[in-house]
Amino acid sequence: MTSINVEKYKLSDKTAKLTAKDIIPVVQSSDSAETREFLNKIAELLVDYVNIQNDRKEKILDFHHPEDMKKLLTLDIPEDAVTLQQLVKDCAMTLKYQVKTGHPHFFNQLSCGLDVVSMAGEWLTATANTNMFTYEIAPVFILMENVVLSKMRKIIGWDGGDSILAPGGSISNLYAFLAARHKMFPNYKEHGARALPGELVMFTSDQCHYSVKSCAAVCGLGTDNCVMVPSDEHGRLIPAELERLILERKARGQIPFFVNATAGTTVLGAFDPINAVADICEKYNCWFHVDAAWGGGLLLSKKYRHPRFTGIERCDSITWNPHKLMGALLQCSTIHFKEDGLLISCNQMSAEYLFMTDKLYDISYDTGDKVIQCGRHNDIFKLWLQWRSKGTEGFGKHMDHLMELAEYEVKRIKQQSDKFYLIMEPECVNVSFWYIPKRLRGVPHDAKKEQELAKICPIIKSRMMMSGTLMVGYQPDDRRPNFFRSIISSIAVTEADVDFMLNEIDRLGQDL
Amino acid sequence: MTSINVEKYKLSDKTAKLTAKDIIPVVQSSDSAETREFLNKIAELLVDYVNIQNDRKEKILDFHHPEDMKKLLTLDIPEDAVTLQQLVKDCAMTLKYQVKTGHPHFFNQLSCGLDVVSMAGEWLTATANTNMFTYEIAPVFILMENVVLSKMRKIIGWDGGDSILAPGGSISNLYAFLAARHKMFPNYKEHGARALPGELVMFTSDQCHYSVKSCAAVCGLGTDNCVMVPSDEHGRLIPAELERLILERKARGQIPFFVNATAGTTVLGAFDPINAVADICEKYNCWFHVDAAWGGGLLLSKKYRHPRFTGIERCDSITWNPHKLMGALLQCSTIHFKEDGLLISCNQMSAEYLFMTDKLYDISYDTGDKVIQCGRHNDIFKLWLQWRSKGTEGFGKHMDHLMELAEYEVKRIKQQSDKFYLIMEPECVNVSFWYIPKRLRGVPHDAKKEQELAKICPIIKSRMMMSGTLMVGYQPDDRRPNFFRSIISSIAVTEADVDFMLNEIDRLGQDL
Repeated sequence: MTSINVEKYKLSDKTAKLTAKDIIPVVQSSDSAETREFLNKIAELLVDYVNIQNDRKEKILDFHHPEDMKKLLTLDIPEDAVTLQQLVKDCAMTLKYQVKTGHPHFFNQLSCGLDVVSMAGEWLTATANTNMFTYEIAPVFILMENVVLSKMRKIIGWDGGDSILAPGGSISNLYAFLAARHKMFPNYKEHGARALPGELVMFTSDQCHYSVKSCAAVCGLGTDNCVMVPSDEHGRLIPAELERLILERKARGQIPFFVNATAGTTVLGAFDPINAVADICEKYNCWFHVDAAWGGGLLLSKKYRHPRFTGIERCDSITWNPHKLMGALLQCSTIHFKEDGLLISCNQMSAEYLFMTDKLYDISYDTGDKVIQCGRHNDIFKLWLQWRSKGTEGFGKHMDHLMELAEYEVKRIKQQSDKFYLIMEPECVNVSFWYIPKRLRGVPHDAKKEQELAKICPIIKSRMMMSGTLMVGYQPDDRRPNFFRSIISSIAVTEADVDFMLNEIDRLGQDL
Repeated sequence: MTSINVEKYKLSDKTAKLTAKDIIPVVQSSDSAETREFLNKIAELLVDYVNIQNDRKEKILDFHHPEDMKKLLTLDIPEDAVTLQQLVKDCAMTLKYQVKTGHPHFFNQLSCGLDVVSMAGEWLTATANTNMFTYEIAPVFILMENVVLSKMRKIIGWDGGDSILAPGGSISNLYAFLAARHKMFPNYKEHGARALPGELVMFTSDQCHYSVKSCAAVCGLGTDNCVMVPSDEHGRLIPAELERLILERKARGQIPFFVNATAGTTVLGAFDPINAVADICEKYNCWFHVDAAWGGGLLLSKKYRHPRFTGIERCDSITWNPHKLMGALLQCSTIHFKEDGLLISCNQMSAEYLFMTDKLYDISYDTGDKVIQCGRHNDIFKLWLQWRSKGTEGFGKHMDHLMELAEYEVKRIKQQSDKFYLIMEPECVNVSFWYIPKRLRGVPHDAKKEQELAKICPIIKSRMMMSGTLMVGYQPDDRRPNFFRSIISSIAVTEADVDFMLNEIDRLGQDL
């Protein structure tokens, strides 16, 4: 097995010269050999890529700067059709230079890995090519949504409620914000800010995902009225600070109405204290949203669910992205509400011309009027198929396995404390650390040393990319300059891969 | 070729019994025969489906009411993993009961058809499974976005500008709204409605897509401040009415700031008069947005671009969905801005922890900070590959072909004026008509007759679905009760299919 060979994927002489006009559905045929040959060749390439990606001797990426990459690729769109053979080559070329996000040494994003079953599901989704607004045109997928989303709500701890899939966690958080505002101020939809007795204020920790703050900009509060609550040194929201800030804003005559707690912060993987935040929300009559886009997968884990999610059933809404920790293909994000009926009353614009009520079937299955996107991509099938491929028990064990690998990484970092500095014991699969190059080993750890360690993060990262052997992210946070944050969410990772990561950073950085 | 045979797709005895745990990437192998066999079997099923879908003797759907459908399918998620063979069967079962949206007799949605090349592109997208926020993890796809989006802006008539792909036209319209507000009131982002000297008001025709009105609900204006401008009997916004309503709102001390014109309305396919609206926007200093989600494809057509899009280069922003008329796979929506730099200054939340500035490469290629979703699905590859498969010239001719088929349909309706009543000459591929059953032929056309014709639309529609032979939509509008609206956006449709549609409606409805 070697890297993608762009020249390998040859169509027969006859098919090679054809163009898209010569295959189904332009060609009027109930079975076309040329169409089959073209699609089979694409499938062959993709299956090769899946196998190659899993080969640890393969590079993760073949890095080129944008201007150089443009010269390696033929990206322009010609006036005339290219041949089927050229299209196959285009596909091969694209994969040759794409970053292998499913490679076992890719620890770079919250979404790592390639679940082969979920991928097969996404192929089918493409082929079925339907839109999710009505049972009329997506009967099977609409029913799957019902089954999976109600199962997720049961796992959260709710019997009823309502849910929807959204294009990413940021939009899921936006749905929560909108429903909260609508629930508290049902006239807002028609009358806007005029309907309110004062300015709305929302609260979230300073470690939250930036999409929470973005709601304030998008929806008319202004980011000034998204109050950032300080977090402790582990990155967890401080409840006493939340209460102090709510009182401060109330004293100004403003209306605290929405509190976000994060279950798994982006950088540190911290879990805000759910019960303490829930108590405050109850006391001050605020909507309680939990952004578990990242940590949500641990709801499936018997071993790690508590104490992280203890009290989760008390929240009003929760964002949970199966495309992150659970490894469903991108994108797959869900938002769940304790109260049924809010999504539709908040978002429907009564587009009778699209969502007719005089239909043949029970239109309560139609979802188009519940959402702000109108048409929705089918994001359920890949998750449904993947979940069946593991079973609920197996999915929970898979979550445990990822956490155990992160624990293994922590153990290995501690065992090599001359070379690595563990920033904190993680609550999720985010492991935050500095690499200590030779010249700094034995030097006492202080702010000045941190500045030195921070400087080498971008250098090691660029060496990783140039050598193509490893991908691990780094970033600063409010308390610290640049540090590495590895993520173990790939189904492909083993303990040996974790060791490879640490050894490779050492190899790339020891001269720094 | 017959319908999907759920039992046909047999894995070898050895592979059939395995589960997801036994294939890549859980199995540590650099090439796994079982993984190949599983994926090849899925590909075989999908290629069969593509061929079956194109067989005109096949039913489009096998309709069952939701409660019955649940009994036919096994949708539940078990505690334990199902086998690979069961997963293959799950896929086959799903396709057996899914509506064939690419069938040549599916005229039901704005998005009909299945472009096989675009589908192959989406398979690759699934396999590459990356997120579009940075060049670091999506180098090839980010460059493709640049190439395709700047080509689209050139076609619009702009040399510079900026664009982004969004999850559907509704979110694209939301981007336009946000950029407009930010451009006019840059303090709004921080200070919200407090930053404004008065209430904002937006304008759109009463035929617009409901997502325009939804912006007013989401973003804090309230739907009261989304003014619906009357349209003429062809569904086109009346400029004099727009000006009158702007003046009326100004007289109230409100601030008109945003006007939407629709290029291809959802029901009638009407094109609002662009130059006339542009003049009014200039006069009253309003942002001029064009929602060409539906009609945008005609920008590619030398034959049909004018007069529909004459003056389009005068707009400030334009939504254009290649997943509609152009037949790219769902979803593929674009939003374009005349002014560069607005997207980032409007939407960035300075999430330094995600979008670092000390990187190895030119970070102007990173897009994460420009968007409200953070992570974005890769929606470019399917469009890029499809566009290359046709060439720009060929894509334009394909648009012409769809329009010519709609003209053919109009001609055939007129030729059978005893059986069909054409509601108007269409400007797009939407053809609006009533079917006249035997008992009503020869009766003079008046409001009372329209009520009768309207009543039979849902009946014929349910007969279509029960017989599975045809799918055409119907809806009421502001002027008329229920009428049929057929859409020709499928690459599979021929003149014979158009004749089939009309004949089949006649067959299903003549006794009514």
